[in-house]
Amino acid sequence: MREMFHEELDQISVAVVEMTKLVCAALEQATAALLDADVVAAESVISQRAVITAAYQALADKAVELLARQAPVAGDLRIIVAGLRGVDDLDRMGGLARHIAKVARMRYPQCAVPDELHGTVRQMASAALAIAQKAAEVVEARDADRALELATDDDQIDALRRDLFSVMLSPEWTYGVEPAIDLALVGRYYERFADHAVEVARLVAYMVTGERPPLEAAKTASS
Amino acid sequence: MREMFHEELDQISVAVVEMTKLVCAALEQATAALLDADVVAAESVISQRAVITAAYQALADKAVELLARQAPVAGDLRIIVAGLRGVDDLDRMGGLARHIAKVARMRYPQCAVPDELHGTVRQMASAALAIAQKAAEVVEARDADRALELATDDDQIDALRRDLFSVMLSPEWTYGVEPAIDLALVGRYYERFADHAVEVARLVAYMVTGERPPLEAAKTASS
Repeated sequence: MREMFHEELDQISVAVVEMTKLVCAALEQATAALLDADVVAAESVISQRAVITAAYQALADKAVELLARQAPVAGDLRIIVAGLRGVDDLDRMGGLARHIAKVARMRYPQCAVPDELHGTVRQMASAALAIAQKAAEVVEARDADRALELATDDDQIDALRRDLFSVMLSPEWTYGVEPAIDLALVGRYYERFADHAVEVARLVAYMVTGERPPLEAAKTASS
Repeated sequence: MREMFHEELDQISVAVVEMTKLVCAALEQATAALLDADVVAAESVISQRAVITAAYQALADKAVELLARQAPVAGDLRIIVAGLRGVDDLDRMGGLARHIAKVARMRYPQCAVPDELHGTVRQMASAALAIAQKAAEVVEARDADRALELATDDDQIDALRRDLFSVMLSPEWTYGVEPAIDLALVGRYYERFADHAVEVARLVAYMVTGERPPLEAAKTASS
């Protein structure tokens, strides 16, 4: 009985990792859609949203069911609580990938991103994906120490976002208001995607140690 | 013993309502800071963030403690789960109010919002606050039916956001890129504030009925 319960707990972690892979694939495809003005890719991300939401509901239901059936305490309880909160973050990450795909679709057949900013957007996407993949590894390995590193990885995205802004606000910006609005929002979506991934890792640290990592203070200060 | 437990459950609802009031007060003050270029008000919102985070942590800790101590099932369990998830939404609402205050502070002594758009921003703020106040009433009364109304209230904010965009993208827009970026982001912050309030109400519907309200489908479609 107890053994089966621990198997079910492990399944929660596995499902969180799977869901992280789903939202990363969505962000990757949304970025391709955005930079290549690929409306088929954009539509694919937008329609896949339902798959992510289904995974999210299954995981949330499973967590509540385990709470009711097993009355877990201590570390077991924290695994479920972390899973329950982490899926909200992962679901939002799916939503943000979808938002980026929608910007691509809205501007099609034009590309929403001027050529000179493709590199910056690509770097933002890579940085956000790297953080999410690290978060998945942290979940898999239940590695609280590594969870703490992720907050600083986040700084790279902030720096890239500042680059984006300085290009758009320079006197050489000739593209007008519309691409600036698109890019300000797109930059925000990548930043939030990474923030949620950091939050997932933070939940692992809580799950393992029962303590909120100092990361919280860092995040609150910058949020 | 059981009676005391139900008192503690009631306290969770009371704390959620209190926290909703805190984030509404923050949004109100942030809006005043933004429209009046009032840097003192902006600083006040930014520094109050710690109060909201403290309330959030106390509520989350209380919820986990009750799960461990009482091993609740059915409706009691759902109250705690809803509380645990709702505080994440409320904490984000506090973060969004802070973001708006930061835009006000960044542009001070200028006002980030051109005169002609003060009315639209004020309406967005009012609409977001009305939804959050309704969400607090829904929590207080555990009113699942009223929870369902909130998704449609959300439409008003979307319409106002479209108004904002159409002004910024019209040929008469003479303010350039910077205020357009500020307003695109500010519009997004108000929209997200309202989305999170809708989510809090949705959690009440789940708490009362054990079912996810159809609202979910509506939200997923637009997110």
